[in-house]
Amino acid sequence: MVSLRNARRSLEQRRDRVEEALENLVQERLTKSDAPAMSLARDILLAGGKRIRPVLALVAYEAAGGDDVDSVMDLALAAELIHTATLVHDDIYDQSKTRRGVPTLHSSHGISHGIIAGDYLFVLGFSLGGRCEERIVNRMGESAANIATGELLQHKHIGDLGTTPEDYYAIIDGKTAGPFASACACAAMFAEASEGVVETLSEFGWEVGRAFQLVDDLLDLTGDPSMGKPRGTDVHDGKMTLPIIHALTMLHGVEREQLADVLQNFSDDRWGELTELLESAGSFDYTRQLIQNHIERAHASLDILPDSEAKSLMIELAKRSQRRRI
Amino acid sequence: MVSLRNARRSLEQRRDRVEEALENLVQERLTKSDAPAMSLARDILLAGGKRIRPVLALVAYEAAGGDDVDSVMDLALAAELIHTATLVHDDIYDQSKTRRGVPTLHSSHGISHGIIAGDYLFVLGFSLGGRCEERIVNRMGESAANIATGELLQHKHIGDLGTTPEDYYAIIDGKTAGPFASACACAAMFAEASEGVVETLSEFGWEVGRAFQLVDDLLDLTGDPSMGKPRGTDVHDGKMTLPIIHALTMLHGVEREQLADVLQNFSDDRWGELTELLESAGSFDYTRQLIQNHIERAHASLDILPDSEAKSLMIELAKRSQRRRI
Repeated sequence: MVSLRNARRSLEQRRDRVEEALENLVQERLTKSDAPAMSLARDILLAGGKRIRPVLALVAYEAAGGDDVDSVMDLALAAELIHTATLVHDDIYDQSKTRRGVPTLHSSHGISHGIIAGDYLFVLGFSLGGRCEERIVNRMGESAANIATGELLQHKHIGDLGTTPEDYYAIIDGKTAGPFASACACAAMFAEASEGVVETLSEFGWEVGRAFQLVDDLLDLTGDPSMGKPRGTDVHDGKMTLPIIHALTMLHGVEREQLADVLQNFSDDRWGELTELLESAGSFDYTRQLIQNHIERAHASLDILPDSEAKSLMIELAKRSQRRRI
Repeated sequence: MVSLRNARRSLEQRRDRVEEALENLVQERLTKSDAPAMSLARDILLAGGKRIRPVLALVAYEAAGGDDVDSVMDLALAAELIHTATLVHDDIYDQSKTRRGVPTLHSSHGISHGIIAGDYLFVLGFSLGGRCEERIVNRMGESAANIATGELLQHKHIGDLGTTPEDYYAIIDGKTAGPFASACACAAMFAEASEGVVETLSEFGWEVGRAFQLVDDLLDLTGDPSMGKPRGTDVHDGKMTLPIIHALTMLHGVEREQLADVLQNFSDDRWGELTELLESAGSFDYTRQLIQNHIERAHASLDILPDSEAKSLMIELAKRSQRRRI
């Protein structure tokens, strides 16, 4: 197993490779007939996201026994392009003004350009991923179709104080955990791993993806704006995140009514009230415990794999998802 | 060669097969986890478009020597799904209220659902088409990316009275002719045709697609609302169609100024004025001549193919595109 410091450095190296490949792709497309669409999409693509999906794909490929990382890069980029496409479109209907520290595409260029640029990123992602064999394309398509399902479910539950934890998991499995799992599973298939290994890595993706989303939920409630993560977007949007669903279940009587009122008539001067209610319900602790469970399950899912640098990196990546502050 | 009546019947049969395959696909997806997304997309998908792209794919496949039409159906459906995805998204930024006789998706279900359903249709289209070999996926991806380029160019020229015929062709090649050409070329590749045959069928697609779009332009100016085609949408939207570009070029002095005024301050009571100016410039005749030229070129492009039923059908399909009134 590699040391923690080495693991960090190795993950950074992989992130750098993704970044470089993405920059090369952008430059290449700018010389083609789709240059106008890429000019639009470039800023958000290169504004430096966490690149967790493509890095996951690279390390899953290696952990599955793949030994030509360059060959899996298109698949890794496909995951990032499809993810970015959904961000561009989400920002339109969430009416978000900034993303990754830059103005959102539709707020700079108008809704039509936002829609078109997102479509273009979908197309480009599928063009890259579509070069793989049929079962990989099927897995990718299934996961991308389920993003739509998750988003529709999320819309359905906006402001719905009766949202259950099952609803919540169905939403995040579609939107976040599914694409994490798909990135891992497709990369493992690309490495021609056995079905068991593909399943194992897919499982790892599901668990890390769920943990990642729960951390997002917590950061939305506790996040530090100085870290670049604005606080309260979900609350303002009426999104039912797990800490809130938990508090609505645990609180009773006057406190339950107060929480409903805070959520339905939220404004920034009610942060103290909301935080106190969530603390009183134990919702932060509960969510942290769930995150811990998902990370442990992710870790355990890798047990059947032989030790390798890539396996250590996957574990480090899982821990990092748990620790992240942005 | 088959008789005209037989050709019509054979084309109808192929359209029916496409329709049936589409209905089966919809039913199948309604039993999967993407059922919520398909429930949304179903109405527009099954509202009975012309299905010209998938029918083109089927007959091009046969003309290229393919003998298992069922095997190319996924590719044919991919063309229709991607086309429908762009319609759903176009309708959002064009703020269209109806499409194929039914309310547009976003006007019934809101912008978020329109965006998500369109994304879903893109994903489904690429999932079906992505099962093909790499060069087909590349061709499909290139064509879909160029739709974005065409749309961006169209937006750029909204209300631009200086739009040139070259700009116009760049727009329609991206939005319409390219996908027609891609449907033909991909189907021919799927039939494992020689490069020359792929090129020939692609050329046919380009020419029929251009004719198809020019007919659309004419119908927008002359169309009969009783045929289900509302008149004047392009004019109201400020879209620079070829008859208008031609008239702006041909007219001078007072007439040119009048035309500019009609276009910039259009309302339904100015139809007579607009029609008279276009007649006076000879723009209807000019456009009809261009359509004729494209259809003749489409016809000629098939010369290198041996006579076959499929070849006759392609010629009939081209003529039909020229004659259509909706």
